[in-house]
Amino acid sequence: MKKYVVAIVGATGAVGTQMLACLEEQQFPVGALKLLASPRSAGKVVSTPWGEVTVETAAPEAFDGVDIVLGAAEDDVAKALYPEAVRRGAVVVDNSHAFRLDEDVPLVIPEINAADALQHKGIIANPNCATIIGLVPTWPLHQLAGVKRMIVSTYQAASGAGVPGMRELEEQIGCMGRGEEIPAPAAFAAQLASNLIPQIGGEKYQGFTSEEMKMQNEGRKIMHLPDLRVNCTCVRVPVLRSHSESVTLEFERDITLEQAREALASAPGVKLVDDLAAESAHDRWPMPLDTTDQDLIWVGRVRRDISNPDALRGITFWCCGDQIRKGAATNAVQIAKLLCE
Amino acid sequence: MKKYVVAIVGATGAVGTQMLACLEEQQFPVGALKLLASPRSAGKVVSTPWGEVTVETAAPEAFDGVDIVLGAAEDDVAKALYPEAVRRGAVVVDNSHAFRLDEDVPLVIPEINAADALQHKGIIANPNCATIIGLVPTWPLHQLAGVKRMIVSTYQAASGAGVPGMRELEEQIGCMGRGEEIPAPAAFAAQLASNLIPQIGGEKYQGFTSEEMKMQNEGRKIMHLPDLRVNCTCVRVPVLRSHSESVTLEFERDITLEQAREALASAPGVKLVDDLAAESAHDRWPMPLDTTDQDLIWVGRVRRDISNPDALRGITFWCCGDQIRKGAATNAVQIAKLLCE
Repeated sequence: MKKYVVAIVGATGAVGTQMLACLEEQQFPVGALKLLASPRSAGKVVSTPWGEVTVETAAPEAFDGVDIVLGAAEDDVAKALYPEAVRRGAVVVDNSHAFRLDEDVPLVIPEINAADALQHKGIIANPNCATIIGLVPTWPLHQLAGVKRMIVSTYQAASGAGVPGMRELEEQIGCMGRGEEIPAPAAFAAQLASNLIPQIGGEKYQGFTSEEMKMQNEGRKIMHLPDLRVNCTCVRVPVLRSHSESVTLEFERDITLEQAREALASAPGVKLVDDLAAESAHDRWPMPLDTTDQDLIWVGRVRRDISNPDALRGITFWCCGDQIRKGAATNAVQIAKLLCE
Repeated sequence: MKKYVVAIVGATGAVGTQMLACLEEQQFPVGALKLLASPRSAGKVVSTPWGEVTVETAAPEAFDGVDIVLGAAEDDVAKALYPEAVRRGAVVVDNSHAFRLDEDVPLVIPEINAADALQHKGIIANPNCATIIGLVPTWPLHQLAGVKRMIVSTYQAASGAGVPGMRELEEQIGCMGRGEEIPAPAAFAAQLASNLIPQIGGEKYQGFTSEEMKMQNEGRKIMHLPDLRVNCTCVRVPVLRSHSESVTLEFERDITLEQAREALASAPGVKLVDDLAAESAHDRWPMPLDTTDQDLIWVGRVRRDISNPDALRGITFWCCGDQIRKGAATNAVQIAKLLCE
C-alpha cells in the first residue's frame, strides 16, 4: 500500500493536535510526518506514532516532498502558504475559510459529496464546524424530500476559538469555583462562563455574521443546492468542545416522521439518540458532554415542525457533535483518505 | 390610597423571595403581608419592608382577610389552595401552570393584555417564564404586521428549576473550579455545567415537551391569536438566572426592518440593544449576565429572516430576560397592580 508524506500546518493548535490523533485512529497510510507551525512553536519535539517529530516553521520550502497537507492555520497563513505547497506537488486539505467558496476548490463533507473531492486542483476545503455538524444529519433528510429552507440556532462551544477559547472558559469556571474575580476576557468579547455571547464572526450580510452566513453559503455549495435558504443564529455557550444546533427544515416534498427517523438511524456519520422515555438521560437526546471526543453527529428530538402550514413538509431536530473532531480534524482526515482510495 | 393585605404562597422559594422584593420596588400598596410556605419553612422569621413576618403554613384558613395572593407554589398546591383563597374573598395571581389554560382564568402579560386581568373570577394566571420573555418583544411586531408563525429556540437558565437548580449548577461549577468530582445530578436529569440539556418538562404533544407547547398554547391565549403556530425547542443551558431566546417570526403583512426596530425601541418592557459596531460588548447585543436582576426584556440581533421566501414578512431576533423577575415575580406584581388601579 502506498504511503504518503503528510504535513500538518498549525500542528500545535487544538485542531492540528487532533489531526495528528485522527491520522492514527483512521489508520492513514503515513510514510513520513512533518509538523509545521509558527516560528514560536518551531523546535518543539512532538512524540507521534511515526516517531519523534521536531516542529518546523511553516514556510514554502517546508512543503518540498510533501504529498498531503492538512491545514489547521488561519486564513492569512492559508492564503500565503498553500498555493506554494500545491506548486511543490502537494494536495492541501485546508480547514481555514480562505478558499471555501472559491470555484476551483471543492468543499467537502465525505458523507455528502465525497466525489467533489476528486475534482480538486490542489486544494480541498474543509467546511466550517457548525456547517458540518448541521449538514451531516440534514443530508439524509434532503435525499428523501429535498430541503429548501433551514432555520438554525446554534449553541457553539468555546473550542471554536481554539485552545485560547477553551483555556479562557476553564479559567473563568475556575475563578467562579474558587470565588475569585474573573479576569477581563481576551479570547471572547465578554465573559463566557455562566453567560451566552450571541455573535460569532464579524458582520457579513444584512445583520447576519460571517459564521451565520457560512451555513447557507457553504451548505449551498456542499449539497449542490444553489437556492437553499438558511436563517442561522450563532451563539457561543459555556461548553468546552461540542457544538449543538436546533434545526428546523422545510422540504420540497412530503416526508413522514418514520421516514426521517429511519434515514437518520442508517445515515453514515450519524447516531440517532431519540427516546424521551429512556431510563438514562444519556439515551434520551444528544448532549455536548456525551458527544465530546468522538466522531459521530448525534441527533435527537426529531419531530414534525408543527408550525409549518404544510403539515408533512417540516422536520425539527437537535444535534450535537465534537467541534474539534468531526467539526474540523476528523472531516479533514476523512477527505485526505478519499485521495488515497 | 387603599392598602391591601397581601399573601405570598411559596414565599421562601426563588420566585416568592423575588415577589417580596418586587412588592417594595413597584411600591405596591401593602397594608399587611403574609408569607405562606410548606410546613418545613413555617416559623421562619423574614425581615420585610413591612416589618418582621413569621412564615405560616399555607392552609385554607391562612387566607382569611387576605385581599391579594401572589402564588409561587407548584401546580398541586395551587389547585388545592387557591380556590379556597378565592372563596374567602381573595384574588389570586398564580405563577403555577395549574390554571393557565382554564377558560375562566385570564392569562396576562401586562404589556400585552392588561385588560384581560379585569375579567377575572378570582384567579389570574401568570404565564410561563419563557413565554413571557419571548412574547414581550413579539407583541409590538405583531401589532405592526400580524404574527402568524413563531420558530423559537430557547437557552434557559438554571433558575427555571428554582433555588435547587441554581444551587446544583453553582455546586457543579464549584467542583469543576476546584478540580473535584461532580456529584450525581438531582435538580436536573444530567450535569448542567459545561453541558446542555435539550428537554424541559415532560413529553406533551407529538414529541414536543410541556415547556415547548406553552409558547404556543399560552401565546395563543395571551395575544388572542387562536391560529398562531409555534415551533419551540427548549434547552437548559449553564447560565444562572436569565433566559435567552432565538426567535424567528412570520407575519401576515409586510414589515420593514426600520419599523420593527422603531417598534421595539419604544415598546413598554423592552430594551433594544442592537449595535454590532458598539465599542463595549454590553452595548452590542443582550447577554444573560447583563439582563440578570432587572426587569426589562433586552432585544438585539434584529434582522430580516433571509430564509423566508416572502422577503418582507420575516423577522429574526435574540432576546434575554431575567427568569425570576419578568419571567415570574415582576410580571405577577405588575398584574396585582392592575387590580389596584
